[in-house]
Amino acid sequence: MIDRAFNFYSGPAVLPTPVLVQARDEILSFNGCGTSIMEISHRSDEFIAVLQSAEERLRSLLQVPGSYRVLFLQGGASLQFSMVPMNFLGGGTADYVVTGTWSEKASVLATGFGTINITRSRGYRSSIPDPGELRFTQNARYVHYASNETIDGVEFPYDLDGEGTPVVCDASSNILSRPIDIEKYSLIYAGAQKNIGPSGVTVVIVRDEFLETSRGKQKGVLSYASFADNASMPNTPNTWGIYIIDLVCAWLQEQGGVEGIAKINENKAKLLYAAIDNSDGFYTGTAEPAARSRMNVTFRLPSEELDSNFCRDAAAKGLVGLKGHRSVGGIRASIYNAFPIEGVERLLEHMHDFASKNR
Amino acid sequence: MIDRAFNFYSGPAVLPTPVLVQARDEILSFNGCGTSIMEISHRSDEFIAVLQSAEERLRSLLQVPGSYRVLFLQGGASLQFSMVPMNFLGGGTADYVVTGTWSEKASVLATGFGTINITRSRGYRSSIPDPGELRFTQNARYVHYASNETIDGVEFPYDLDGEGTPVVCDASSNILSRPIDIEKYSLIYAGAQKNIGPSGVTVVIVRDEFLETSRGKQKGVLSYASFADNASMPNTPNTWGIYIIDLVCAWLQEQGGVEGIAKINENKAKLLYAAIDNSDGFYTGTAEPAARSRMNVTFRLPSEELDSNFCRDAAAKGLVGLKGHRSVGGIRASIYNAFPIEGVERLLEHMHDFASKNR
Repeated sequence: MIDRAFNFYSGPAVLPTPVLVQARDEILSFNGCGTSIMEISHRSDEFIAVLQSAEERLRSLLQVPGSYRVLFLQGGASLQFSMVPMNFLGGGTADYVVTGTWSEKASVLATGFGTINITRSRGYRSSIPDPGELRFTQNARYVHYASNETIDGVEFPYDLDGEGTPVVCDASSNILSRPIDIEKYSLIYAGAQKNIGPSGVTVVIVRDEFLETSRGKQKGVLSYASFADNASMPNTPNTWGIYIIDLVCAWLQEQGGVEGIAKINENKAKLLYAAIDNSDGFYTGTAEPAARSRMNVTFRLPSEELDSNFCRDAAAKGLVGLKGHRSVGGIRASIYNAFPIEGVERLLEHMHDFASKNR
Repeated sequence: MIDRAFNFYSGPAVLPTPVLVQARDEILSFNGCGTSIMEISHRSDEFIAVLQSAEERLRSLLQVPGSYRVLFLQGGASLQFSMVPMNFLGGGTADYVVTGTWSEKASVLATGFGTINITRSRGYRSSIPDPGELRFTQNARYVHYASNETIDGVEFPYDLDGEGTPVVCDASSNILSRPIDIEKYSLIYAGAQKNIGPSGVTVVIVRDEFLETSRGKQKGVLSYASFADNASMPNTPNTWGIYIIDLVCAWLQEQGGVEGIAKINENKAKLLYAAIDNSDGFYTGTAEPAARSRMNVTFRLPSEELDSNFCRDAAAKGLVGLKGHRSVGGIRASIYNAFPIEGVERLLEHMHDFASKNR
């Protein structure tokens, strides 16, 4: 029996243990074919079946209609920051809603491809606009936002309504964590390494109608159309990553799908925020209550030294990856789909113990 | 004991069995840290050590001097087809030497970023220019070529001399297969999935001086400088892929490095080409003898039906992945570094048997 840590890393992040066990057991010979899934042509029947299965599971989990493509790219969400304006802006105007570090980066990388109108949330990095509060530029090609800010720990509790403007969403850190109304989106992208699989794959879900507006603007693997027209394989994809995604999605289906996992995620987050709120000010949440992320719970202790000692003592108890992002400091407990409730309970104990000793 | 096939796939391709065994044994807990290498932050000490080790091993194997960067990107060689002109052409002129399918694709994707001068080899897809035969455009920003054409089975038996023009080389399918004179190159790129590791990672080796000429032309993960300035991590890399690359390079060092493996590769290819040449015309090599690839041995039988039956019967004997690329047909035996000599011997037996029965 291998001793597994409770892994709070923000991404690459915890994967379901049964997924790793299955990957381990078939790494030398996939489905008895005598080669690893990593060693086999992406055009082989074996791999194509894996790719199709991963796509079908994602479609089923998120209830993606036939009028959308589900694509597997590389390069992370960061490449999407460039590809979205390169494929869809074409000198026009786009609205960028900036609520934290990643949506800000996306807006910076869009400059140069057209006019970028930025709407910053009232409390940048700690709040989320209310539904209906945002106004969009007339004839904007799209409005871009990040549904969850991994670094800052703020999350949209609703699907943004573009009111006619196509909505493009970076859902890297909360995709598959709860049901969404997919029809509200024209394009959703997500780096896999938080809730879907390992790093090195980006899932893109794009409405056909929106995709068509990108034609002719880019070539090769910088063109979304080249992925749509070639069943995600204009070139060799990250085959191992897609294989792990298929296993993660199968596991998620066994947990009751996104509806099932949403309840568990809600409960995990509630327990942690209650511990913060009931700590008599020893722990301070960094996000406004209405904007709190269910995926990345960010908080601070009374001093940086205590932040640091808190993480050190947690690691000694097998609770790893709690240090906040280097740009903001503090503590970040990332509790994605695959993070078990037992780990949350262990963190609650640690929070209680540490506060008692250091108050 | 798991029964492993002899895997002739052209990429993703065979990996050394000891690499897969090690990956299997530590997939649930890397170095006893209680998480998979796939689940751990790319900023963690554990992963940074893997990344640095992979870089150091590549530097040592290819004798890369300190005046070059070694970078790990995503997106395959196909993204390099776009990134090279986007970062280095800037409206200038580049020479493209076209010897087969992939160097042709690279030249097509460079159009639009400057003037592209194409030099086609005498026997396109079957020959390689003689050393000194090529003439380059004065003041070209670079000359691009593919050192081995995976689909067509033609390989440069020498390092191209740019005679002052910076040389950019797609070495996806023969990197690490023999020693090269790295100082002849300004930039080498290689999709990992043939001789270095799994798909989803691209190794880029670039001379500092050349890299500097790209500054300011691109942003984000489309900029080589952003990888060089951030130790290959302007964003989350394919951590699993880099981990496997580190293991493959360690294995290669145990085989005597590129000098050691070059002798083995030479011998494997010689055996197969001899079988083709001594088959009284039953098997026909598609490349001119002087241009024959040591990595991808391409040949034909007297009819397409026999090509097809040859592959079918081979698969029944555990020899998989012999079908030629869908664009050219025929047979292709890819015999990269990790392909064992025993597999070549088994293929020789099959070639002999099949010819006897079907002549």
